[in-house]
Amino acid sequence: MKFSVTVTLKKDVLDPQGKAVQNTLINLGMSDLKSIRQGKFFQIELNEKDSKKAEARIDEMCKKLLANLIIEDYKIDKL
Amino acid sequence: MKFSVTVTLKKDVLDPQGKAVQNTLINLGMSDLKSIRQGKFFQIELNEKDSKKAEARIDEMCKKLLANLIIEDYKIDKL
Repeated sequence: MKFSVTVTLKKDVLDPQGKAVQNTLINLGMSDLKSIRQGKFFQIELNEKDSKKAEARIDEMCKKLLANLIIEDYKIDKL
Repeated sequence: MKFSVTVTLKKDVLDPQGKAVQNTLINLGMSDLKSIRQGKFFQIELNEKDSKKAEARIDEMCKKLLANLIIEDYKIDKL
């Protein structure tokens, strides 16, 4: 069973990496760029056939390792 | 206009960062984990109302900066 997890910084958390990318894109001539924020993306494959159990497992992974819940949000999608 | 861009390593490219995450998750007791691969995620906002022009702009950003087309694939979604 395959899932994707997207981890993004919470709205009010500064994103220096995204800011650096934004400045570079503006220097490259993309004047219509309003904002860009960077996050992490994971493609996860599980040996678990029960879709509820699998999703609970992915949620556990996010909480234990993939996301820092103090500053980040995460979103799980089934692929 | 808001878009999301997901940049992932091509299938046959090694992913040492993903491998490290995988080993850590297995050490945390997630024995049902089959594979995990890591990528990048961008949320981009443009000052452009024409949806075709905006998407072409995002595509240009991906090619010029966000993705390394030799080893990475990218996917653009409208939010």
